[in-house]
Amino acid sequence: MDDALTYAAEHREEHEGILREFLAHKTVSTDRAHAADVREGARWVAKLLEASGLGTVEVHETDLHPIVTASWLGAGPEAPTVLVYGHYDVQPPDPLEQWETPPFEPTVRDGKIYARGATDDKGQLLTHILSVRAILETEGELPVNVKFILEGEEEVGSPSLGGFVEAHRELLACDTVLVSDTAMWAPDLPAVTLGMRGLAYIQLDARGPDHDLHSGVYGGAVRNPANALALILSRLHEPDGRVAVPGFYDDVEPIPEALRETWRNLPQDEEELRRELGVPAFAGEEGYSLLERRWGRPTLDVNGLWGGFQGEGAKTIIPSEAHAKVSMRLVADQDPDDIVAKVRRHVADVTPAGVEVSIREMHHATPVRISPDAPAVKAANRALEATFGRAPVAVHSGGTIPVIAIFDEVLGVPSVLMGFGLRTENLHAPNEHFHLENLHRGVEASTRYWYEVAEALAAPSKGK
Amino acid sequence: MDDALTYAAEHREEHEGILREFLAHKTVSTDRAHAADVREGARWVAKLLEASGLGTVEVHETDLHPIVTASWLGAGPEAPTVLVYGHYDVQPPDPLEQWETPPFEPTVRDGKIYARGATDDKGQLLTHILSVRAILETEGELPVNVKFILEGEEEVGSPSLGGFVEAHRELLACDTVLVSDTAMWAPDLPAVTLGMRGLAYIQLDARGPDHDLHSGVYGGAVRNPANALALILSRLHEPDGRVAVPGFYDDVEPIPEALRETWRNLPQDEEELRRELGVPAFAGEEGYSLLERRWGRPTLDVNGLWGGFQGEGAKTIIPSEAHAKVSMRLVADQDPDDIVAKVRRHVADVTPAGVEVSIREMHHATPVRISPDAPAVKAANRALEATFGRAPVAVHSGGTIPVIAIFDEVLGVPSVLMGFGLRTENLHAPNEHFHLENLHRGVEASTRYWYEVAEALAAPSKGK
Repeated sequence: MDDALTYAAEHREEHEGILREFLAHKTVSTDRAHAADVREGARWVAKLLEASGLGTVEVHETDLHPIVTASWLGAGPEAPTVLVYGHYDVQPPDPLEQWETPPFEPTVRDGKIYARGATDDKGQLLTHILSVRAILETEGELPVNVKFILEGEEEVGSPSLGGFVEAHRELLACDTVLVSDTAMWAPDLPAVTLGMRGLAYIQLDARGPDHDLHSGVYGGAVRNPANALALILSRLHEPDGRVAVPGFYDDVEPIPEALRETWRNLPQDEEELRRELGVPAFAGEEGYSLLERRWGRPTLDVNGLWGGFQGEGAKTIIPSEAHAKVSMRLVADQDPDDIVAKVRRHVADVTPAGVEVSIREMHHATPVRISPDAPAVKAANRALEATFGRAPVAVHSGGTIPVIAIFDEVLGVPSVLMGFGLRTENLHAPNEHFHLENLHRGVEASTRYWYEVAEALAAPSKGK
Repeated sequence: MDDALTYAAEHREEHEGILREFLAHKTVSTDRAHAADVREGARWVAKLLEASGLGTVEVHETDLHPIVTASWLGAGPEAPTVLVYGHYDVQPPDPLEQWETPPFEPTVRDGKIYARGATDDKGQLLTHILSVRAILETEGELPVNVKFILEGEEEVGSPSLGGFVEAHRELLACDTVLVSDTAMWAPDLPAVTLGMRGLAYIQLDARGPDHDLHSGVYGGAVRNPANALALILSRLHEPDGRVAVPGFYDDVEPIPEALRETWRNLPQDEEELRRELGVPAFAGEEGYSLLERRWGRPTLDVNGLWGGFQGEGAKTIIPSEAHAKVSMRLVADQDPDDIVAKVRRHVADVTPAGVEVSIREMHHATPVRISPDAPAVKAANRALEATFGRAPVAVHSGGTIPVIAIFDEVLGVPSVLMGFGLRTENLHAPNEHFHLENLHRGVEASTRYWYEVAEALAAPSKGK
């Protein structure tokens, strides 16, 4: 391993050059105009995997953008197998005029490389390819079997991935998944993410009269669907901030005291965050800290609403329709299907006469919890501590990475989320960047991880 | 008078030809591309007034579209003076493809003339010009002094009219105003409108975070302005449908029993109206009939709302802002300024912490009540009864014609609203039309009105 680390240290410039090449590919998955660029990016990644010593590299067609897989299985059937997940597609670069340097001309300033996708996720996923390369170049073999699955649709909701994983269980069979698409807790303070909230996303459509009516002529005699929608949305919360849907909390467990303790001890500056978000004050469920509200408690948010007249000035109508997008973040054993069924019943109960409301389901994801005692997690902790000189903190995420639930449900294996990004690196915004120092630390941590996880999972033979 | 009625009966074809010419002018006031057409329409009306025997015809420039005035004062200073208000501008004709014949190529089918503006308001205002013409052609003089004020901005909210009336009090001085821009109650059943609700129109702007936030990362910890807006809007009504703003009903009087009785006796088919509007059921304040809710009680309606993500699919954000247009219809002594002040206080009271809400005022109009005992109203009743062979019904309108309040406040005179349109004539919609029979009845009723009102207002000399 030491030779590999030395090799990586001596090849920093080359590694930065590879990242630079990767970032020049305009792999914008949301924009059909970039479909050919995405495809070219997939081929470039496939070549890099081959050049890094991986075999059975394949570019799989999907209905949208290709999925790239590769593997090195030289450790033999007795050794554990790790599946690396990452995504080579990126967010659109708009608004272009706010970039200091062009989004697809990677530029280094102050030790940071600026380009779309630098931290999300090209810089991060690259660490694992480069660590494999360094080990194979120096040691000739890895202590574990390694597989890669790199998708090009993460930024459009991974529509092909679930079906692909189900159809390729054998190809992807593994003992654990490794993902670097999350953030460190702070510069110099690494983090392993042990939980993510689930998601249920619905659209409410309220319909009243056949067509917009004159609010003077008919106001007062007809149920206004916009007023009705506001009433329904207001009835989704209790005055104390809790979600008012009956049974919503049935499968929510209290946040374990050990977790609360861990979160309490995380260094954080709430006032700085408040200023950053530009809110007059934080708000939320009583009796919970800021992190507990964000990571450990379920929520319900209106993501959008619309209906009737939205232009300048005044138009006096009773709108025919009003709509809202509503998402719920779920925790513990909350099941998206069950939650949506409960919301349906509650909405039907509180819908006033004279208006019809229907609910459409958009997206679901089950909450993810990863045991801090999982051997692969402990291996990640050791690799990060050795690299950063500081033990990583265990964090959760309020958001959702749906693929983690897919790997859990379809492959039956846990994931390790070891992030090298920083919250401040403008992901999904202009001037996205990645700290090159964390590229190199990522390669080192990844190198160490292969050896740590090999030891942690070394055990009576594992079926793959 | 009889000679004038005979003249009108003998000149029906000519009158229809004049209306046809009038309707060919594309006086679309909302569309700057039609500014020259509007101006040409104004000049055409001015010429018609002159050709009809009126003097002092003027086309007054405004910031937008011209106002046309004219007068015939031959009845002398002892005789009463009536000011006719009407508008020569029309709604845009869109959607064009839904017209059976082109909107500015007037076409007669089944005794109805189809064209934009046919019933709103060209056909209706023309009745008064043609009655004056018939009397002057036959009798040589009118029994009253007559003035006209015809505007070209009614369909854009009459922005110039208030200032113009204030600046031309002497030019417009009169004893009563006559307006034909409303509807009959049913075919063959004329109506005089005796009341209109007032209006207060505001926009609510709710602001939370500086920018849209990820609803996974921050959901539960930040006040969502869309949820907050829904809460605020829901708090504007009581569960029983009454407006929940404290003091909102302070200046509302019970609907007089005589009015309730009148409205109860109006022939109407609620089930037919329900089907026409396409609502599953009527709704509204308990204890009031459908007409009482529409005419006699104040209301609060959301006219539009918007915020956050409105596209296809799912976007997981806490929107930075959410907005609503809200209008209130006012009755009796409710004052728009007072009502908005009360709404401001109430909204401030119910706004949750963590979000800032501001209120912008858009439009105001005070409620209008016209006494059924006003001599000019009784004159209109007699003229209509003689024309239609049936006494007109006294109706109210839930909507607002702001000019009526202007004439009341600035000139200090009451208006008579004598409509010849029908609710079914597609005003503001494709295939607008006007029953030619009602053009001719309108000319007759108007002719009779001049004589009736002359007698009704004949009295100790009136200052003008």
